[in-house]
Amino acid sequence: MYVPNETSSMKSVQGALLSSIQLDRNSQITLFQQLDKAMRKLILNGAVIANQRLPSSRQLADDLGVSRITVKNVYEQLIAEGYVYSKIGSGSFAAENLKREKSPRPNKRTLLKYSQRKSTPKHVLSEQSKRITLSKATTRIAETRSFRPGIPALDVFPRKLWNKYWKEVNTNCHDDSFGYGPTGGIPRLKNAIAAHLRDARSVNCDAEQIVITTGAQQAFVLIAFALINKDNIIWYEDPGHIAGRDAFHTMGAKICPVAIDEEGLDLDQAIATHPKPAVIFTTPSHQHPLGTTMSLVRRLQLLSYAHDNKSWIIEDDYDSEFQYRGRPLPALQALDDQGSVLYVGTFSKSLFPAVRLGYIIVPHDLVAVFSAAQSLLGQGASVLMQEVVSRFIEDGRFADHIRKMRVIYQRRRDVLTVELRRQCSDMLTPVHTDVGMHLIAWLSDGLDELKTHKALLELEIETIPLSIFSITPQTKAGLVLGFSGTAPDDIPPLVEKMANCLKSLLKANTT
Amino acid sequence: MYVPNETSSMKSVQGALLSSIQLDRNSQITLFQQLDKAMRKLILNGAVIANQRLPSSRQLADDLGVSRITVKNVYEQLIAEGYVYSKIGSGSFAAENLKREKSPRPNKRTLLKYSQRKSTPKHVLSEQSKRITLSKATTRIAETRSFRPGIPALDVFPRKLWNKYWKEVNTNCHDDSFGYGPTGGIPRLKNAIAAHLRDARSVNCDAEQIVITTGAQQAFVLIAFALINKDNIIWYEDPGHIAGRDAFHTMGAKICPVAIDEEGLDLDQAIATHPKPAVIFTTPSHQHPLGTTMSLVRRLQLLSYAHDNKSWIIEDDYDSEFQYRGRPLPALQALDDQGSVLYVGTFSKSLFPAVRLGYIIVPHDLVAVFSAAQSLLGQGASVLMQEVVSRFIEDGRFADHIRKMRVIYQRRRDVLTVELRRQCSDMLTPVHTDVGMHLIAWLSDGLDELKTHKALLELEIETIPLSIFSITPQTKAGLVLGFSGTAPDDIPPLVEKMANCLKSLLKANTT
Repeated sequence: MYVPNETSSMKSVQGALLSSIQLDRNSQITLFQQLDKAMRKLILNGAVIANQRLPSSRQLADDLGVSRITVKNVYEQLIAEGYVYSKIGSGSFAAENLKREKSPRPNKRTLLKYSQRKSTPKHVLSEQSKRITLSKATTRIAETRSFRPGIPALDVFPRKLWNKYWKEVNTNCHDDSFGYGPTGGIPRLKNAIAAHLRDARSVNCDAEQIVITTGAQQAFVLIAFALINKDNIIWYEDPGHIAGRDAFHTMGAKICPVAIDEEGLDLDQAIATHPKPAVIFTTPSHQHPLGTTMSLVRRLQLLSYAHDNKSWIIEDDYDSEFQYRGRPLPALQALDDQGSVLYVGTFSKSLFPAVRLGYIIVPHDLVAVFSAAQSLLGQGASVLMQEVVSRFIEDGRFADHIRKMRVIYQRRRDVLTVELRRQCSDMLTPVHTDVGMHLIAWLSDGLDELKTHKALLELEIETIPLSIFSITPQTKAGLVLGFSGTAPDDIPPLVEKMANCLKSLLKANTT
Repeated sequence: MYVPNETSSMKSVQGALLSSIQLDRNSQITLFQQLDKAMRKLILNGAVIANQRLPSSRQLADDLGVSRITVKNVYEQLIAEGYVYSKIGSGSFAAENLKREKSPRPNKRTLLKYSQRKSTPKHVLSEQSKRITLSKATTRIAETRSFRPGIPALDVFPRKLWNKYWKEVNTNCHDDSFGYGPTGGIPRLKNAIAAHLRDARSVNCDAEQIVITTGAQQAFVLIAFALINKDNIIWYEDPGHIAGRDAFHTMGAKICPVAIDEEGLDLDQAIATHPKPAVIFTTPSHQHPLGTTMSLVRRLQLLSYAHDNKSWIIEDDYDSEFQYRGRPLPALQALDDQGSVLYVGTFSKSLFPAVRLGYIIVPHDLVAVFSAAQSLLGQGASVLMQEVVSRFIEDGRFADHIRKMRVIYQRRRDVLTVELRRQCSDMLTPVHTDVGMHLIAWLSDGLDELKTHKALLELEIETIPLSIFSITPQTKAGLVLGFSGTAPDDIPPLVEKMANCLKSLLKANTT
């Protein structure tokens, strides 16, 4: 039997101290609970030693001035849990073998957040968790601030309509919809997504190729998990999607930056510097965050290179349904007839983040391993939520919603652009975009990205400095501003606040 | 510029074949879509070569017998996407540099499921995904069958009440509740859980120590991710929880089986065979699946050993609130004053699986790394669902629900036990349990676990053979039967079916 070592055991104190227990009759905690807790403590800390006889319940009740029933109940509880044993005719005794180490409890107030800690944790953390602490993911602010990129127009989300679908599902769906559901998602949602994507994105897939995830981030993790070994090369757009990069980095991939030119990901540079990647991460429809659309020629070259070199391509198609001019270009996946592309989509942008649903379209021969991986990593997405979104798509509500949001976002983009030009000219230059939910604004000389970002954040304006997206240092300073999540009426006064902030930063710089 | 290699490029066929395009006027696909698709194909497969002039829209419209507007729209779309370019005054031409490999598209019907494939995938999978294919997690059946262990009484779940809370949240909550929410979960839910656990499980924690997950499985993955390096030793109860073991195995831990004796996890055996584990996985309140409750002495020894050896303990407290006799024992975590225990709980059992909410109580100095890891692995649990469950707990609905389910489950346990004894005696011996949602039944000689399981599954009865839970071969054959998810009126006829099935299996064996 395991016996704790000497240093961690403690000196036993002889003598029953039970009658000295202090009970507070004015406390919200019952006398039962107070006595129960006090006795456990005395037994565990050795004040009452093993096999020591406890006073009878009558005697202790008298000593403490409580009812005998209370004491009896405490004794029974302690017997049930093994702190005390009773011998018929002899009374109750403290149990044996309860000796244990005693060490000071850490003072909670002195404990700093992990990232700020000076001392190392006493136990060991994994290699991955050391990489996590480098991740940008830890810095997310709980509340959404104005202009945070990637946030849909939650202020105009059709809550009534949405609630109607929830009520329908909560009331009428089969009991199984309250269960775990099939690995990889419910067929009904897969069918709805496949039909939608064939139409909206020319995507070339069977419903069976779709694996439902809890969002794009989980999709990236699944891909890293299923396809990447430690130190595998991954081409990553530079600047590029932050949380995806953090995921691949933490999962052990070697992130190799690929610059963006006017046709998209710079293939020649990438081949020259890091040939034969295991995985290529790209946002061809709307480069994240620069906004470039990859040309057809580049798309075909990329597919061809990936096929020749057995590289997987991750196509992150996060917001391209919000196109404000012409028809959206078909997905890269639509051109792939070799099964090289894993197409990642999310409802976080097209509906809202708390829906916690996304999907990957994978080649047929990866469906089983991805479904299993997804089940393994967290049992999958909520079936109830899948049922709600299935109906929402089937009834045409989803396509309606996209159309409505397109009009709303275009207006928000226009107002933001006009206001930035009007109020911030000479300090900040917005770049026109015809797709998506954010725009880039270049900062004039004299404005530091990080300082500007911080100063704006104090005004509840949440931009992202371009350098946060960057792997290698960028030559131009800029901010990413989301326009989709901020109501048009709020934009002019917010930009006025921005303008004043930039002015004082510039002034502070010159004086 | 990257030029695809010779072998993957293809022979160009000269000549415009546009006028030979076949359009189907009876199809549901519009003529625009048919022509658009056909022209892309001819350009991409080289039937129309680079810089070749296309017929004028008028001419092609005449040749095909479609309106000129249709052809013009197709040309415009192809120009927008880069398949075609136009020169003013000269007409439209097929774009350059679109050459690409052509290889036969795999015939979908011939593709087998990953697990059944004979050939290796052309691209490389990761080490982890090879381990996934060994996992039991891939075998889950979509629909819940009778007696599946771990499924709550979905048939009596209070849907109306639940819907009231959803409506309240969908209608009134702040826009932020439709967003991503704070990393690690919303404070409101953490507070509600901490208050509940202090009361129900004597758990010793601040709300800040709680990390909200999408269920117990994600909690195990987070723990593996944050604390385990490849080939680290993990003590795992044998037999033990399947999906948790699969997660640790797939994440690279070395699973070391620890036998269960009448006091719980056999500490002496574990120390003798695999000393100093990184992590110890245990279900002290109700051993999964055997049902043993770990004794107080063993708990204290385990805590002491873990502290002395810097091992983390995972306490999986999955169903101990359903105790049918006496008060539940406090959690192991309640005895830990060294910060060695990570306490894992889930709402999958106490509410229902599709709620996709669970939690880990971690020592203070791990909160930040766990929250970041959780955000990284999938952005966290749905804020809407967190808001609903918070209110459900705060209003006392959750405690009510547990109390009601306790009565219902006790009745279901009683009916199942009585029926098994009545109808299956001499073939199957149920073991009495006072906790949880399942029971063990030992099989008589002559009944093979796996064969019995399969035969029952064909009758829509879903037991789990004990060997599936086991790491090392067990001497006794048994099945795990869940009683919580099956209505009492359904139990007698189901057990009758079972009895007949067992009889014919025994008969087949003896003849």
